[in-house]
Amino acid sequence: MSKKNTGAGLRGQSAGQTAICTVGAAGNSLRYRGYAVDDLAENASFNEVAHLILKGHLPDADELAAYSARLRALRGLPAALKEVLERIPASAHPMDVLRTGCSFLGNLETEADFSRQQDVADRLLAAFPSMITYWYRYSHDGVRIEVETDDDGIGGHFLHLLRGEKPNALHARVMDVSLILYAEHEFNASTFTARVCASTLSDLHSCVTGAIGSLRGPLHGGANEMAMAMIEKYRSPEEARADVLRMLEAKEKIMGFGHAVYREKDPRNAIIREWSRKLAEDVGDTVLFPVSEVVEKTMWEEKKLFANADFYHASAYHFMGIPTGLFTPIFVMSRVTGWCAHVMEQRENNRIIRPGADYTGPDPRPVPPIDQR
Amino acid sequence: MSKKNTGAGLRGQSAGQTAICTVGAAGNSLRYRGYAVDDLAENASFNEVAHLILKGHLPDADELAAYSARLRALRGLPAALKEVLERIPASAHPMDVLRTGCSFLGNLETEADFSRQQDVADRLLAAFPSMITYWYRYSHDGVRIEVETDDDGIGGHFLHLLRGEKPNALHARVMDVSLILYAEHEFNASTFTARVCASTLSDLHSCVTGAIGSLRGPLHGGANEMAMAMIEKYRSPEEARADVLRMLEAKEKIMGFGHAVYREKDPRNAIIREWSRKLAEDVGDTVLFPVSEVVEKTMWEEKKLFANADFYHASAYHFMGIPTGLFTPIFVMSRVTGWCAHVMEQRENNRIIRPGADYTGPDPRPVPPIDQR
Repeated sequence: MSKKNTGAGLRGQSAGQTAICTVGAAGNSLRYRGYAVDDLAENASFNEVAHLILKGHLPDADELAAYSARLRALRGLPAALKEVLERIPASAHPMDVLRTGCSFLGNLETEADFSRQQDVADRLLAAFPSMITYWYRYSHDGVRIEVETDDDGIGGHFLHLLRGEKPNALHARVMDVSLILYAEHEFNASTFTARVCASTLSDLHSCVTGAIGSLRGPLHGGANEMAMAMIEKYRSPEEARADVLRMLEAKEKIMGFGHAVYREKDPRNAIIREWSRKLAEDVGDTVLFPVSEVVEKTMWEEKKLFANADFYHASAYHFMGIPTGLFTPIFVMSRVTGWCAHVMEQRENNRIIRPGADYTGPDPRPVPPIDQR
Repeated sequence: MSKKNTGAGLRGQSAGQTAICTVGAAGNSLRYRGYAVDDLAENASFNEVAHLILKGHLPDADELAAYSARLRALRGLPAALKEVLERIPASAHPMDVLRTGCSFLGNLETEADFSRQQDVADRLLAAFPSMITYWYRYSHDGVRIEVETDDDGIGGHFLHLLRGEKPNALHARVMDVSLILYAEHEFNASTFTARVCASTLSDLHSCVTGAIGSLRGPLHGGANEMAMAMIEKYRSPEEARADVLRMLEAKEKIMGFGHAVYREKDPRNAIIREWSRKLAEDVGDTVLFPVSEVVEKTMWEEKKLFANADFYHASAYHFMGIPTGLFTPIFVMSRVTGWCAHVMEQRENNRIIRPGADYTGPDPRPVPPIDQR
């Protein structure tokens, strides 16, 4: 007999050990290998954070230069993968595109054994921006873009491919910070998916493909897309405040607020809010940012619900001209670091993840002949 | 704080409720919705079992005729999917092919909402044999096969496409029984992967794509392939017995024996063994089946380890001319019923599956400037 399930969704139940991340210690912190995410967002680049998460330590200057050069060199896509991406219609869900691209790449660059797992992780990290923008530009604009650029960071590379020109320093930095904030979050559902897959000793492409499928779910990724859909409806802060009050009264769900793990605040919110403010000034916005602020203020005053990482990401991405449908794929470009680190950690000390279940179905019974059913 | 992990891999921990299946009740049984698997293998077809698992009850004659006709009508593949399969090399892992085919199909036939989930499940069930054989025959033989046949069962359809001719009644029936035996197994790692993905309210293609990735792992699917690799080495039962004794002495792992859940025996073993015996007689085999028997006998005498469902599947599939690399894809063609039923069950009473973890990493620390690392 299995131990009875104490909380639905394994809430509060440890499913293993990790040295990669703590979420919500003291109710309000997020740390990658001991470093606070706000410290990293202030004092490091995403390439440094990816190195930290995947290789276990922050790189020194030589290591960082080598790692950045390595990631730049892995941006190209095989011709067969481009041909596959060209067969995916513009109407497809962008997360289905990345899930398929990752899976297809596994046929061409199969992880034969685990000794090269860091190489596979680096390759996926470098290739996802190329994959999603190649499909997006081909399916929406009919152009076959060149996916290899010399941009230093992954966020800059993404913006460059999306728009066809190098981003300015502000946009490149905001993307970089955004990737830092989303890089890792302990045993969330997509990372746990990757670990369950890894526990069968399957390959890294399978683990990441499965994780993308889980992140696709509206209860997991996609909150920033839904926050965008809400805030872009309003023409003024007054209208926003009135409608939020109406939604609260009607008990409608408002995306981008509260969190399953953080109790006091989401430490990522203040960071992305300030970058969104800078972008608003830069583009001369007088609506979307004030609307976001009044929504945040109203949610706090009325419900003591704090904005999470997703809320100001909506306006920040929008100010940089990123189509809303690509918000969750950006999450993939970042979180692939956490997923791969967790797969490697699972492999180090593995036992197959195979829980039990409480049976609630019919008692034993004989199969009746078909004419007696 | 999360409750400490009591057993690695969540062993013995319930992760939810299910009405679909019991594994190992009384140490030796497997029941789908209350019906014993040996009763079903004796008195039902796989189409009936798929109907039982997916729709909740055994079909009467009219329902069965309608369901079989429906599955026959869903065997075709879109041109774009064929073009994708043609771009996967013959050297690819067949499970990577199915994972990619399933994911790609999700771009073309996206599950827009959950009201049509039964249709998506039926479609995948009908299309997997077409997908794997289309790729196999194209990549290995250079032919573009016609994937729509009028075979009644899914196993017969598969054999027909693989060999280019309708299978005889014995082969069609053995395939059908094999699909019954592998159809469902509670919260195993691939099914649990599908449920974790489903718990984010992601789509069915994502859930099944993830499950295929987990089944690919050598600790999960693939045991029958490894059993085949072992038994085909031996030229006689004597040689087999001597080598098994040597392997036991050397503490080498022997695949196809024992089970994480069954304590006394695997109820599926006796069924597939007798079908393998019939096939051996049919093809006039004098080596592989006697070798299999002596391996089973030796493992029991020496270690009290019983053969599980995978062991005699190796010889049975081999006698039907199925390439060893396609053994685990057959598992997918069958288990997709269980996966989809579990996804639907998870959706009925959902909470996102998000366990905690025990942290073992570094204490909080500040980010050092890059020149001080």
